[in-house]
Formats: sequence, C-alpha cells, structure tokens
Amino acid sequence: MPENAKTGWLRVVGLGPGDAAMLTPEASQALETASDVLGYTTYLDRVPHRPGQVRFATDNREELDRARHALTLAAQGCQVALVSGGDPGVFAMASAVFEAMEHGLPAWRALDVAVIPGISAMFAAAARLGAPLGHDFCAISLSDNLKPWALIERRLRLAAQAGFVMALYNPRSKARPDQLAQGFAILRAELPPDVPVAFARAVGSAQERIHLTTLEAADPALVCMRTLVLIGTAGTRLVPRPQGGAFVYTSRSASA
Amino acid sequence: MPENAKTGWLRVVGLGPGDAAMLTPEASQALETASDVLGYTTYLDRVPHRPGQVRFATDNREELDRARHALTLAAQGCQVALVSGGDPGVFAMASAVFEAMEHGLPAWRALDVAVIPGISAMFAAAARLGAPLGHDFCAISLSDNLKPWALIERRLRLAAQAGFVMALYNPRSKARPDQLAQGFAILRAELPPDVPVAFARAVGSAQERIHLTTLEAADPALVCMRTLVLIGTAGTRLVPRPQGGAFVYTSRSASA
Repeated sequence: MPENAKTGWLRVVGLGPGDAAMLTPEASQALETASDVLGYTTYLDRVPHRPGQVRFATDNREELDRARHALTLAAQGCQVALVSGGDPGVFAMASAVFEAMEHGLPAWRALDVAVIPGISAMFAAAARLGAPLGHDFCAISLSDNLKPWALIERRLRLAAQAGFVMALYNPRSKARPDQLAQGFAILRAELPPDVPVAFARAVGSAQERIHLTTLEAADPALVCMRTLVLIGTAGTRLVPRPQGGAFVYTSRSASA
Repeated sequence: MPENAKTGWLRVVGLGPGDAAMLTPEASQALETASDVLGYTTYLDRVPHRPGQVRFATDNREELDRARHALTLAAQGCQVALVSGGDPGVFAMASAVFEAMEHGLPAWRALDVAVIPGISAMFAAAARLGAPLGHDFCAISLSDNLKPWALIERRLRLAAQAGFVMALYNPRSKARPDQLAQGFAILRAELPPDVPVAFARAVGSAQERIHLTTLEAADPALVCMRTLVLIGTAGTRLVPRPQGGAFVYTSRSASA
C-alpha cells in the first residue's frame, strides 16, 4: 500500500466467479483501499459500496476505453481498482490495460500497476465437475470480435489433434448463434463421439447450472454467453455416484 | 459444514502459489475445520498447525496412495483436507483422487467430496508479468512420468502451430535434464526467434524470481522444477518501463 495517499496506483482485480468465498484476500484489500472502482456493470455490482469511493460502470464492449480511463485516473493520483470477472488475465481486462499502456502516454509506463489474479471460470467449473482438466489442456475464446472465425476453427482442430482438454469461453451469443454448432462439427470429425462434454453456467453464482453430456449429443441451444463449455478427451472418465450425477476427471496418464 | 462431527468429508484444497494473500476464504475454512490434513511435505508445511488436527506428510510421488488414504479417512468419518499447491485440478491432486475413487471401494463414490479451486501457478506468474495469457493458451506438463515424451513433442508442435501461448509445467528435473532443450528446439522450428519467453520461479513465495528472454536466447540451464516456463506467440508484446523491466502481454486481437 502506498504511504502517501496521493500516489496513484492501478490494480487489475480478479473477482473470481462471483462467490465471495472464492475472492482472495489481496483482491479484497485492493477493493477496500481503492479510491475509484471501475468495471463492467455486472462485475461492479458484486463490489460492496464504500463511503467516498467513486464508481464507474461501463458497457462490456468498451474495454480499451475503460483501460485508458483507469490509467488516466491512476496518473492523476487516484488509487484505482479495475475489476474483472474470474482471472483478469484470461479473456478479460489485463491485456487491454497493457495494450492501452503501450499506445498511451509515456508516463503511464512508470505507474504502479499490478494484476491481482482470481479464480478463473474454467478452474471453478472444473472443480465443480471433479478434475476434467487433469491433463494437458487449452482455453479458446469462440468470439470472433477480435480474430477471424477461420483461426478459431483451426485452433479447435489442432487442439483436438493434440489431445488437449478444452475450455471454450464466449461460446455463443445473440450475434453468433450458429458458430458453436460449427465448432462441434469440427470436433466431432476429430474426437470419439462419447467424449464427455460439460456446459457449466455461471459457476459460483446463484444461477449455477451444470449439464453433462457427450460430444455426440451436445446441444448448442443449451449454451449461452455465461456458459463455459468443457470438451474432454479420450482419457476423460465419468465416475457415477449412487446419489445421482457423476464426477468427471481426465486421467493423468496418456499413451501416444 | 457438517452438523454431525462424525460425517466424513474430503476437500481437495488449492493452496495457491504460497502467499497467504492468494488463499481463498473457502480454502482457509476447509483447513480450519478439517480433522485431518494430508499433503506433500512442501505444501503441508504452509498450513498452520492447529491443536488436535492430525497431519500426514508424504512424498510427492505417492499421489495415488495419498488419494486412497484421504478417501479411507473420509469414509471413516474424518473431515479431511488434502492440500495441493496452486489449483488442485492443474497437474495436481484432484485427478488422482477421482482415479482412486473410480478404482476403489464403491462406498467412496457416495462420500461428500469436493474440490476447492486455488490460484494456479500459471495465473500467478502471468499476473506478475502483465497479461501474457491474454489470448488463447494451453498448459502442458513436460514430465514424461505418465505419458511418452513423443506425445509431449507432438503437443508442443501442434500448440505452436495453433498459435497458443504456452504454460509449461514440470519443465526440468534432475532425472530429465535435457528434455527442455529438446522442447525448445521443436518450438524454434515453428515460432519466430524473438517470441518472448519467461521463466517464472516460485511466484508468490519468498524465492520468487522472474527471468524474461526470447525463444532464441532461452537457456534451459536457468530452469528448475519450481519454474513455470511461459512461451509467447507472435502477438506477445513487451512494454518497457522507465524504471527498468517490462510488462508482457499478448494482444487480444489475432489475424489468420
């Protein structure tokens, strides 16, 4: 913590999946000591109001603007918490902050800026299921806002050929209703039909819902923007429980 | 928490990278309420002693034995915390627990078993560096204890072709002094020589040390078992700071 209250800083804070039990002490401390808290409305709503603290809620699509705003405030001497769901380094705000810094005022590079990691959606979802990421894995965003869809298809194909468990972020939105089905078609050409697939929606929130299926049966209509899609491998196994449901894990062992 | 102290449970607890500021409240609570705490000596040493709590420290290589021991204690009515560094689902204890459950006593499947996620080494290291995982990424263990080295080579090649940022776990040990160099040779054949590479050692502990280099210059001799190796992509950028050092981030945008 800065001794002089006029020393500005920026913390890019990972809020985790939503449940306060998964918020780290260093994230809590940054939220408590910040003079200004910025974030997408959904995430900012999770941060308790504190007297005197200034809050800036913005739309999700304005990531670079929000990053510049945060850096500007820190350069003015504010203590800024820029909040992100999950981990800020995983398809979230941290990359936008350093992109804004690279192309922004030279003085921004000297600022006290740090990223505070959080429990990512993929690890929270994996923990609920068992240990589906128990072996080599990858994370791919299916959003084609910032990269061409052809590249996403290529990555899905190569990831399946490599035998990675996959965590698919941003799987489906109103603007992109059909791409997840195209993604599943690519994976079905590469992987066994009975590979386990999980739809993990809003894990760690009151709306949490887990749906377990197979690659063959996976129905994109059950997926929304808040769903994380996990694709297993030939080494991913189900352990059915007598009370219903099953644990899912990927074996630590693999053959060539 | 169970109302009846005789109801056994098992929590596979992620301790995070080491710093207590990164330990989640739900992990802390599991450690406080457990009757028995099990783990590899290095991780168990991080857990504060509590009067009446029984502790079992074991060697790192006995993962399945430790998992069976934890399930046996929970089946006997103990409240068991099985601790893991980082996140238990990432090259750690969670997969071993469900493997032991699948092949163990049928009654184990009915037990109250849950995984408590933690801040993984890869996300802690990424946060220290900036946002190197800012785009699609993968995690690969370089240990060939449980999979053939040929499969690891294949995954490195496909991951490079896919354009994934890579987090390499278990990069080098006394028993495997030369494989990391072989891995770098494969990556050099696929990626530009100036791709940023980071060696992040023991992030979140007193021994933390970060070394930033390029794929061309990366020296395997600087890497030990406690180092996480991060390999960038053509879209990974350095933002030099006037006070020395640089932030590293991977652009959210990519072209085909």
